[in-house]
Amino acid sequence: MDVVNCTNATCAPVYDDYIVLETNSTKEEQAETSWDDATWILTSSFIIFTMQSGFGLLESGTVSRKNEVNIMVKNAVDVIFGGLSYWLFGYGFIYGDGPWSNPFCGFGHFATDASGDDEMGWTYARFVFQASFATTATTIVSGAMAERAKLDSYCLFSFVNTFVYCFPAHWVWATNGFLYKLGAVDIAGAGVVHLVGGVTGLVATIMMKPRKKRFTGKGPPDMNNPTNALLGMFMLWWGWLGFNCGSTFGISDGKWMLAARAAVTTITASVGGGLIGILLSYITLNKRFDIGYLINSVLGGLVGSTALCAIAKPWECFIIGMGGGLLAIYTGHILEKMEIDDPISVVGVHGTASVWSLLSVGLFGRPDNVDEFNVRSGLFYGGGFTLLGVQLLMTVIIIVWTVVIAFTFLYILNITIGLRCSEEKEILGADFIEHGIHSNLTDFHVQMTKEELEEFKIKYLSKEDPWVPPILQAIFDTVPVKRDRLRKQSASVVGLQNGSQDIASAVQAHQSYANEGFEDADLPDIYV
Amino acid sequence: MDVVNCTNATCAPVYDDYIVLETNSTKEEQAETSWDDATWILTSSFIIFTMQSGFGLLESGTVSRKNEVNIMVKNAVDVIFGGLSYWLFGYGFIYGDGPWSNPFCGFGHFATDASGDDEMGWTYARFVFQASFATTATTIVSGAMAERAKLDSYCLFSFVNTFVYCFPAHWVWATNGFLYKLGAVDIAGAGVVHLVGGVTGLVATIMMKPRKKRFTGKGPPDMNNPTNALLGMFMLWWGWLGFNCGSTFGISDGKWMLAARAAVTTITASVGGGLIGILLSYITLNKRFDIGYLINSVLGGLVGSTALCAIAKPWECFIIGMGGGLLAIYTGHILEKMEIDDPISVVGVHGTASVWSLLSVGLFGRPDNVDEFNVRSGLFYGGGFTLLGVQLLMTVIIIVWTVVIAFTFLYILNITIGLRCSEEKEILGADFIEHGIHSNLTDFHVQMTKEELEEFKIKYLSKEDPWVPPILQAIFDTVPVKRDRLRKQSASVVGLQNGSQDIASAVQAHQSYANEGFEDADLPDIYV
Amino acid sequence: MDVVNCTNATCAPVYDDYIVLETNSTKEEQAETSWDDATWILTSSFIIFTMQSGFGLLESGTVSRKNEVNIMVKNAVDVIFGGLSYWLFGYGFIYGDGPWSNPFCGFGHFATDASGDDEMGWTYARFVFQASFATTATTIVSGAMAERAKLDSYCLFSFVNTFVYCFPAHWVWATNGFLYKLGAVDIAGAGVVHLVGGVTGLVATIMMKPRKKRFTGKGPPDMNNPTNALLGMFMLWWGWLGFNCGSTFGISDGKWMLAARAAVTTITASVGGGLIGILLSYITLNKRFDIGYLINSVLGGLVGSTALCAIAKPWECFIIGMGGGLLAIYTGHILEKMEIDDPISVVGVHGTASVWSLLSVGLFGRPDNVDEFNVRSGLFYGGGFTLLGVQLLMTVIIIVWTVVIAFTFLYILNITIGLRCSEEKEILGADFIEHGIHSNLTDFHVQMTKEELEEFKIKYLSKEDPWVPPILQAIFDTVPVKRDRLRKQSASVVGLQNGSQDIASAVQAHQSYANEGFEDADLPDIYV
Repeated sequence: MDVVNCTNATCAPVYDDYIVLETNSTKEEQAETSWDDATWILTSSFIIFTMQSGFGLLESGTVSRKNEVNIMVKNAVDVIFGGLSYWLFGYGFIYGDGPWSNPFCGFGHFATDASGDDEMGWTYARFVFQASFATTATTIVSGAMAERAKLDSYCLFSFVNTFVYCFPAHWVWATNGFLYKLGAVDIAGAGVVHLVGGVTGLVATIMMKPRKKRFTGKGPPDMNNPTNALLGMFMLWWGWLGFNCGSTFGISDGKWMLAARAAVTTITASVGGGLIGILLSYITLNKRFDIGYLINSVLGGLVGSTALCAIAKPWECFIIGMGGGLLAIYTGHILEKMEIDDPISVVGVHGTASVWSLLSVGLFGRPDNVDEFNVRSGLFYGGGFTLLGVQLLMTVIIIVWTVVIAFTFLYILNITIGLRCSEEKEILGADFIEHGIHSNLTDFHVQMTKEELEEFKIKYLSKEDPWVPPILQAIFDTVPVKRDRLRKQSASVVGLQNGSQDIASAVQAHQSYANEGFEDADLPDIYV
Repeated sequence: MDVVNCTNATCAPVYDDYIVLETNSTKEEQAETSWDDATWILTSSFIIFTMQSGFGLLESGTVSRKNEVNIMVKNAVDVIFGGLSYWLFGYGFIYGDGPWSNPFCGFGHFATDASGDDEMGWTYARFVFQASFATTATTIVSGAMAERAKLDSYCLFSFVNTFVYCFPAHWVWATNGFLYKLGAVDIAGAGVVHLVGGVTGLVATIMMKPRKKRFTGKGPPDMNNPTNALLGMFMLWWGWLGFNCGSTFGISDGKWMLAARAAVTTITASVGGGLIGILLSYITLNKRFDIGYLINSVLGGLVGSTALCAIAKPWECFIIGMGGGLLAIYTGHILEKMEIDDPISVVGVHGTASVWSLLSVGLFGRPDNVDEFNVRSGLFYGGGFTLLGVQLLMTVIIIVWTVVIAFTFLYILNITIGLRCSEEKEILGADFIEHGIHSNLTDFHVQMTKEELEEFKIKYLSKEDPWVPPILQAIFDTVPVKRDRLRKQSASVVGLQNGSQDIASAVQAHQSYANEGFEDADLPDIYV
Repeated sequence: MDVVNCTNATCAPVYDDYIVLETNSTKEEQAETSWDDATWILTSSFIIFTMQSGFGLLESGTVSRKNEVNIMVKNAVDVIFGGLSYWLFGYGFIYGDGPWSNPFCGFGHFATDASGDDEMGWTYARFVFQASFATTATTIVSGAMAERAKLDSYCLFSFVNTFVYCFPAHWVWATNGFLYKLGAVDIAGAGVVHLVGGVTGLVATIMMKPRKKRFTGKGPPDMNNPTNALLGMFMLWWGWLGFNCGSTFGISDGKWMLAARAAVTTITASVGGGLIGILLSYITLNKRFDIGYLINSVLGGLVGSTALCAIAKPWECFIIGMGGGLLAIYTGHILEKMEIDDPISVVGVHGTASVWSLLSVGLFGRPDNVDEFNVRSGLFYGGGFTLLGVQLLMTVIIIVWTVVIAFTFLYILNITIGLRCSEEKEILGADFIEHGIHSNLTDFHVQMTKEELEEFKIKYLSKEDPWVPPILQAIFDTVPVKRDRLRKQSASVVGLQNGSQDIASAVQAHQSYANEGFEDADLPDIYV
């Protein structure tokens, strides 16, 4: 195991050695280095792709039951439409190395096809790695738009959103990117992935306005499936190891040591974040262990670790993770007061926690002496304010870019085909409206007054969506006339049965109807 | 990163170089190559095994609620019984290299034990990789047999089904296999895994006949848990990266570049497939985003990529994926018209899409110049019809083999212990019948007429299955006499509550019973 | 592929060769070996971490619905609090190599920070690998404490439980550990992880006493979500491949062959275990395929393989797996008779099966001739009783250590802040009590007599937990007065609706209330 000989704290001589050795290494050795590095990147990418399942479950478990399937579909759409645009132009704008490539954007490799290229292996490995990042950046936004975005608009959005992501990725990670040249450090995409995603989410949710009754009623809906939300958190947690460790972009020449370090700091950051979340919840919520606090603080801690992971010390990331967890939770509180509706807390988890992550590099950064991930010392290590300044500049530039471009895209989408579904569709739920799933349909009628319902019925059945099955007509025919009685009866059930109120109230509705002399003859044909 | 020097489109000189280099390489270098290759195969296998969870969830989320646990158990049985026969004789027939090994089958390594063998590492790595493939081939069939196969028969089936898989695997992948010698190309098992699975599924579902009322009633049951089905799709999606990329069977000598290419083409194929599915659904189903279309088209696209993945260009697999998605969906439509019941759409996704995958090699194939995965050019690259002919021959041979052998096995099982459970058990659901899970038991009585129910009761309680708990007796004692009233009341709920109708109707049934003067004394002892 | 030249059954000459070669190998070659080994360890660790999700789902699907979220949270707490103590002192006691390190415990590397250390890469890789093991050992215990442990106590417990784990880990795996020096063999932690976890679980469950009515009522509660439990089993299954294969702790110098072997033996062990479970269930339970039998036997088989995996033959692990499966199931039966409540069967799966695993090394062990995982032959290979004796000694020492230390910690926790939640909280369920999730709240009132309920109400509402939302008050205000009628009505539903009885009975309760003239005015303000 004793492979390297270090004489100082940063192992510099070792890597100097390596640099010398490389010159002498044979072709085979170089080839082996290549495939070792590339397969590390591929394996990490495969792990990162599982985060798509994690985001899907986290969102699906958190939203109302009537939208739980729809949000899973949005996570698939992110890969399909986002993947398409990433292939067509996203990779090209990030890593395209054609003659027009410049500090602002790459150019070349559009509709990426490197077959026969002498860089085929590397191009494809980089493509896959960046694909997993690009789809993550879009997926984050799906959380902010949850429970009210039209799915067809969302398809277009996820196609164009690649554009928002790929330029910052070029600036920070391509060797001719202007932030890269400035020495800005963002190892695993705190700025490029999470800040872009979080800010786009903020723009989207402000533009789309809050969910109906979000700030006028009883607060946000309860998580419809906390078990799934927690499973999603777990999947993201383990996926993050691929995210942070894969970002050393190889294992050769000492990069494996940084990858191992990134795994440790990822863990300590999540521990720090989760610890803060649990303690905060226990103390401020009177001994309750709130699920949202737990999830958001763990993820906030993980986001916190993202910028510095491979070159931080474990205790530094423990502290950074605590900061990330804190920010994730309190950002949510502030948005709540500002009446900005952020259903899955993406602004806190991915937005403010990633700003902290980027700035923490300016505080805790040290040169890594391996692959020039970072060459400057941060404020706490005697480097003064230079690195902090560079990181701040990167943060501001990414925020401004994202706000401007995301706003433009979303605004155009909004005034053309529209981002938000109609109010009646929001009430009925996207699972029924977009996918024809009936199971979660039955709670809408107790949420409206008689007049609203009558108006709704006229609007909904007369003009649009001829595919709506006759079953909806049947609901209108049989249910609403009993609304007042129904409401009284179901009121207490609604309070009791947050997770299953739809079933309970539906049963009651029909039960009460039956008690009053319901006959087969009253039923539309479809039921008999 | 600049490791290789290519001078033409296919990088041939590079690999010529490698071949030269290898001769000069030292023993250590060879050893390192071995472990690099073998651990790539192992890591890929581990990823592929997660597809078992994916298939399980996809199937469990798609079938009726009364069978959702049973189908998960079948996926475990695939690994247990399928794994047993694979270990006992499956691997031996594929890769056994004893003196009797021939172009038709391998021979040797039965009850595989390579400890002490000088090929131990490679034998075991190959064993694990093929194990993940063999169990997948069987798992595909479980979908076609869903909701009506007896579990004990299924155990036997999954044991013998290895036999159906292992011969084609030998023909195509063993160096002395006759299809291998012909130059047939099936890199990740489109024919060997998916076509075998899909055709076996078709044979099984035709032999077993459709689910009760599948083509006489209201069509297929709604997915009982679309969220789980989509999570299953996601798991398969990421698992496919292991499937396709691991199939380079190593990373040395340029194979890593093909693995990276396989990752990219897998992604573009799934994007192409998913795109077709979403657009088709949106256009033909009046703006609805059907979950089945989405899942089947993504998986159809992935199956499409399987034969050619590592040596295709990304845009080729994008097109191939679109074809796969299209076939997966329309095969389902054709089967529907032919009244062939394919509960999880395995015939389209794994059957026809894999035929297209195999034939697409004949169209888009080019020599890979790395590891002789393919040495011929396809029709579109000036190679004429030779490769297409070989691929077509392989396709036909695999189909004929599978039909004959699968039919034989299934027929024997069917006439001896029987494949299909009795009608009353199908109505009650496998979760209750096979596993004693009560939760989904309560909707059966509203699906039958009074007479059917009476007959059912006599049949069921008198002769078999003494383990059926007294609870079933209790149902018969208390519920059916109230059937007519019950039916009227629950009718509208049944329409509303597809996902949860059993709960609702059960509650109603008992509620109505209570309203008519139900007393403790009326109850069997078990309830009091 | 023909890399190695072996002349005897154990490949010894090959590895002798390697040892010679190593001396001659260049610095680069050593470096490549390092990163190949380290990244194998890291990749395995990432896979092992997914087992946390697996345990979570298995437990969540098995317990009552009212506790399904709480147990997922406990699995997160294991990583957060257990991870914190592991970082602070756990790793240091295992692998700390400071001057005070001794055969009983390591010393050094507390609050692990190896940045700048010349062993940085290895220290961090080892840290991550052991972190995944340490959290697993704690997670096992969460199953034994399910459905009645207070979450705040559990947080403390998971913090201190690292202490129980890290000493045995040092004894067995650190090169100066006294059991290591004795030649005790436990490759992937059968003793260190599973026995420690299983015994701690046994101590905990005895100390905490059975769940209320566990042995006085109708037996254990049905699995609330068998699909999730099976998904958890699948996740553990694939995760175990990382567990066992990663435990070769590298791939260089022939270790890759042992890793490949470990993958095969892991599979045959699970096949053997599962086979036993399915057959036992089918035969002894009258053709029923019990889900618990299946899960516990597969996991018992996997635990069985853990000690010997990398150096066993496939057929040996097949047999060992059958033994593990058998022990897992019958231990459960014995505990049932002894009225020891083990909700997730951790004592059988992780306790007795791991004892068998450790002893099986004494029977089937052979020298591996690669990395000195084992240098002795077991009883069946002519080594006499020496190895068996050493293994027995290790087993006894680990059991005694664990009983003493775990008892001490748990006893202190029990007499200070208390381990077990109050009876009324147990009845209401941890999801509501600890996390404020209302969905599963409504079945408690039919489980108590009128007097119990009245007493409960007084106790619960008067003194503690001011955060309990007014909804609980509302339940008391409206529901219990109708208890007697309610009980009659819901009785049959309770029998029918194990999985959903809470919904059904709640609906009925309120329905019956409504029928008797329920008015808005009767409702607390919160409902109107």
